[in-house]
Amino acid sequence: MHTIKLPRLDLTFPYDIKAEESLLAILVAQQIFIESPCNGRRSCGKCKIKHLGGDLPPLSADEEKLLSKKEIRDGIRLACLIYPTTDLQIDIIDQEKNHQVLTGGYVPDYQPNPAIWKKTIEIRKPTLKDQTPYEALIEKALGIKRLPWDVLRQITMGEGTYTAVFNQDQLIGIEKGDTTERIYGVAVDIGTTTVVTSLINLRTGEEIDSEAGINAQKNYGQDVLTRITYVLDHGKNGLDQLQKAIVDSLNEMIRTMCERQQLSPSFIYEIAVAANCTMMHMVLGVDPLSIGKSPYAPVFVDEKDIPGIDIGLTALSSFGRVYCLPAVSSYIGADIVAGAYVAKLHDRKDKVLFIDIGTNGEIVLSSGGKLVSCSCAAGPALEGMNISSGMRAADGAIEDVHFAGEKGFDLKVIGNKAPVGLCGSGILAVIRELLKHHFVNARGNILKPEELEAGDPRLPYIDLDGRKRRICIGKGSDKILITQGDIRQVQLAKSAILSGFVALVNAMDLTLPELDEVIVAGQFGAHLPVESLVGTGILPGAVNDKITYIGNSSKTGAYLALMSLKTRQEMAALARAFEYIELSVTKGYERLFVDCSQFNVN
Amino acid sequence: MHTIKLPRLDLTFPYDIKAEESLLAILVAQQIFIESPCNGRRSCGKCKIKHLGGDLPPLSADEEKLLSKKEIRDGIRLACLIYPTTDLQIDIIDQEKNHQVLTGGYVPDYQPNPAIWKKTIEIRKPTLKDQTPYEALIEKALGIKRLPWDVLRQITMGEGTYTAVFNQDQLIGIEKGDTTERIYGVAVDIGTTTVVTSLINLRTGEEIDSEAGINAQKNYGQDVLTRITYVLDHGKNGLDQLQKAIVDSLNEMIRTMCERQQLSPSFIYEIAVAANCTMMHMVLGVDPLSIGKSPYAPVFVDEKDIPGIDIGLTALSSFGRVYCLPAVSSYIGADIVAGAYVAKLHDRKDKVLFIDIGTNGEIVLSSGGKLVSCSCAAGPALEGMNISSGMRAADGAIEDVHFAGEKGFDLKVIGNKAPVGLCGSGILAVIRELLKHHFVNARGNILKPEELEAGDPRLPYIDLDGRKRRICIGKGSDKILITQGDIRQVQLAKSAILSGFVALVNAMDLTLPELDEVIVAGQFGAHLPVESLVGTGILPGAVNDKITYIGNSSKTGAYLALMSLKTRQEMAALARAFEYIELSVTKGYERLFVDCSQFNVN
Repeated sequence: MHTIKLPRLDLTFPYDIKAEESLLAILVAQQIFIESPCNGRRSCGKCKIKHLGGDLPPLSADEEKLLSKKEIRDGIRLACLIYPTTDLQIDIIDQEKNHQVLTGGYVPDYQPNPAIWKKTIEIRKPTLKDQTPYEALIEKALGIKRLPWDVLRQITMGEGTYTAVFNQDQLIGIEKGDTTERIYGVAVDIGTTTVVTSLINLRTGEEIDSEAGINAQKNYGQDVLTRITYVLDHGKNGLDQLQKAIVDSLNEMIRTMCERQQLSPSFIYEIAVAANCTMMHMVLGVDPLSIGKSPYAPVFVDEKDIPGIDIGLTALSSFGRVYCLPAVSSYIGADIVAGAYVAKLHDRKDKVLFIDIGTNGEIVLSSGGKLVSCSCAAGPALEGMNISSGMRAADGAIEDVHFAGEKGFDLKVIGNKAPVGLCGSGILAVIRELLKHHFVNARGNILKPEELEAGDPRLPYIDLDGRKRRICIGKGSDKILITQGDIRQVQLAKSAILSGFVALVNAMDLTLPELDEVIVAGQFGAHLPVESLVGTGILPGAVNDKITYIGNSSKTGAYLALMSLKTRQEMAALARAFEYIELSVTKGYERLFVDCSQFNVN
Repeated sequence: MHTIKLPRLDLTFPYDIKAEESLLAILVAQQIFIESPCNGRRSCGKCKIKHLGGDLPPLSADEEKLLSKKEIRDGIRLACLIYPTTDLQIDIIDQEKNHQVLTGGYVPDYQPNPAIWKKTIEIRKPTLKDQTPYEALIEKALGIKRLPWDVLRQITMGEGTYTAVFNQDQLIGIEKGDTTERIYGVAVDIGTTTVVTSLINLRTGEEIDSEAGINAQKNYGQDVLTRITYVLDHGKNGLDQLQKAIVDSLNEMIRTMCERQQLSPSFIYEIAVAANCTMMHMVLGVDPLSIGKSPYAPVFVDEKDIPGIDIGLTALSSFGRVYCLPAVSSYIGADIVAGAYVAKLHDRKDKVLFIDIGTNGEIVLSSGGKLVSCSCAAGPALEGMNISSGMRAADGAIEDVHFAGEKGFDLKVIGNKAPVGLCGSGILAVIRELLKHHFVNARGNILKPEELEAGDPRLPYIDLDGRKRRICIGKGSDKILITQGDIRQVQLAKSAILSGFVALVNAMDLTLPELDEVIVAGQFGAHLPVESLVGTGILPGAVNDKITYIGNSSKTGAYLALMSLKTRQEMAALARAFEYIELSVTKGYERLFVDCSQFNVN
């Protein structure tokens, strides 16, 4: 048993030496949070500590690259690159009081000031001489002008202690007894494909639990347009079905977390939701039809603060609220505003491109105080959908692939099981390898076997189904095939994203090399390594060494909205600052799209 | 065919001579309204006209009594006392622009300014260059800061003309097309026993239709205490049942009026409700238990402005509102505040006593700018309940009785049918006659037959059921019996009301002769003639010639709340000005109650 000591914080704690546990992981396990936007991926260079005593392994190459000479002289090291084996004395650099780690994302500094708060009051018994109505007793005790109807209708009063629950300056409920210790919220990211929820203690900002699942709306269509078409075809009833699907999912996920934590959902008072514009319309049950057809004007984009009961959310207090983050337009949703905020695009002085890769790809370019955005329909191919062997990232999914010449394809399979199919990152890895080793040419066509010489190590992997060529990356009964159609799906997605990327850079009169940073957001994006993103040409080679990851910044934005009213205001202001470029009416866009479909565009 | 000409108003119209039609009735049929608070009962002397030409019958004795000498010299006559038989030229005195006749009550002057109003807007089609969300288009067109969630959730927008519906400064709904012409409200008086509704055109203030019915809550108990006990015994479920009973009644009555008028209930935007405090709690579904037990503190008394849908009201626009008038205390409800307002108690400089006679009797005394009130539990006897031959005022109900000595009892039966039972006014008339002709002594006991001499005209009507004495007022198969128990019921009611009356006068250090006016309110009270009220000792003989009737001032108050925001403010201020005396803790009240049970207390 060894110890780690942080003298400045007057803190010492024991730890066990584990081969796979970095100093960063050890600190996080102790609830000591340091900035680590890349989540221990050794790429951001932010998790700095100061070495004060004890033995440390020598400086790694990564540290030499990520730290300045002065920092190295001062004994600064990166916590994610250190695997301690002895007693240590260190100090934390850049520790910020309110930093909390959320699963799947970095949380920037913020001032805690949740919308939801509680206050206890004492109600005395009326007398025959003083028959003051309960209404007036409560108004007086709370110093409010008028007891809201929604509160009045649910009270059965007597004397004693009560706890009033407020949403900003609005009284929303009254509970018997003193319940001030129990006050929770849920941060939600609703993606077209996946839904993520975090249970948050509003008193401490702590993430108590989290839960992820598939958006149950997928039964009505894989992308937003298909789902909007479903509403078009089935009217109000169709919209109700889609709303119920997502709301039921949320209720279930929240109940699962509550059961695990032995917490009554009645102590959850607010659910903050980030989502794309279509999902936001659908979760609120608002007609999404205008989003689906030109000119693509949504019904709403502004933030919403509404009763949960109005949309069928029941896994929270009967008077609990739903806060919906603000969006920009039909195709730049609250998820992107949240991400841009978490990435601090509004504060950046350099040239930063933010990209959320998902079923829809959204891109925001920040330069000289200006924010320009666009959206591109990538389709679900990058998430493993519409791919013949596609599957979600579960046991048996190939998540990485390398072609090792004579030895064939080396597969990395989730759970170390026999390969069943390809998840999103696996698909990109395959295409990357096929391009790198010229199984596929720049136009995306699989080579004909007759184009290869006899004995070429690639020959055994080109499979013929009649005249259709396929690539076979598994062996024997584990045979996994990549069809020409699969490659076209990825090619379309790549073309959509890259053309949007280039169009934005062009719109700002910039060139690719001028970009200072490309921030990849989204839980899905976090699983796509630079090698694959650039290797498949989804992102241009020119930004190869400027790519960083921010994780699920949509959920993080929802978390900030729960915990801090100031971040809500700032996000609303940020949403208004966005310019939006409708690619379909941008001059030369069609040509650009075609150009970007070439795999050699880098 | 003759004509009536009003030269000053440049108006001439034809009329048919009908024996039963007074000039007042002819004018009202032409929508020419003149002040007539007694509703043509020949008692208020307010329906003055000036005779300009044509033949009129000579001045009646009533007119000589009700008009001053100067008025008589000036040719002033009372429209309710004139039955025209020739061409006439007249002028209207005291005509006030906004006067409207409501069924069953006089409406004081008011400035029309309904809470509900409409405004049309034009929504243009968005373009690819301008994808402004519909939300923002509407906000801009209406000049509002934020489109409320309740409006947003229900809109399916496109371009064209829309009509926005406002409740004061709050947007509550948006309708397709221009619907500004159609804007209606309903004024409601919910009594413990009866419910009255009036359909009002909010543009003109006109009463389009009205409907009255029995409060369906009667199945759960005849008085408020029994119904509160029902809630105590059955919990939330019991409260839901009582709420549903009254709300279903309202929905049904409103739909009946709408069908008769071929009007869609979706054009009804507000329902203004006056009711006693218990009924108001129950219609809103608010826990009424504290009203039923000492110290009788209600949950609320202030005015309420809530969505109709929240209480299950469906016979109105989906975004229609319910406005509940303010009350004073558990036993001085919004019905009494409304009545005091309609009677202008707040403006009176003299000493006026306002009394609403119903299942509960409420009394307000206004003197020297002070308003003191009390409430007394009269029970339902005066409305024909708990009386052995009691019935509601329908065909076959005896509504008046006179004892004509040898000729026996002369009965006036509604619908000129064979008598079936006694309605409230009939019961009072019987008791009055029994007292007047000494069938019953001051203690309320029926005389023994042996106390009468042989040949006494009363003897045949004293009926013996074993040792129990009864009075028989019908004949043969139409025999109607009044039991000693019936007399006790009326006696208790009389004692409750009279003792409250006297207690209030005492509390203000006044004497009965000092009262300038006694205003009898309530649809039921309007059917109780002075002769019966004083003859039974419900009201003291000292005020015999000071009694006036104001009709259903509760419904009139609801009507004013619909039509004028200013009256709402004034009613709220009036409610706060009330003092309330809890009789049960008033010194000497028990003794007073016993004294007032004597029928000779006058």
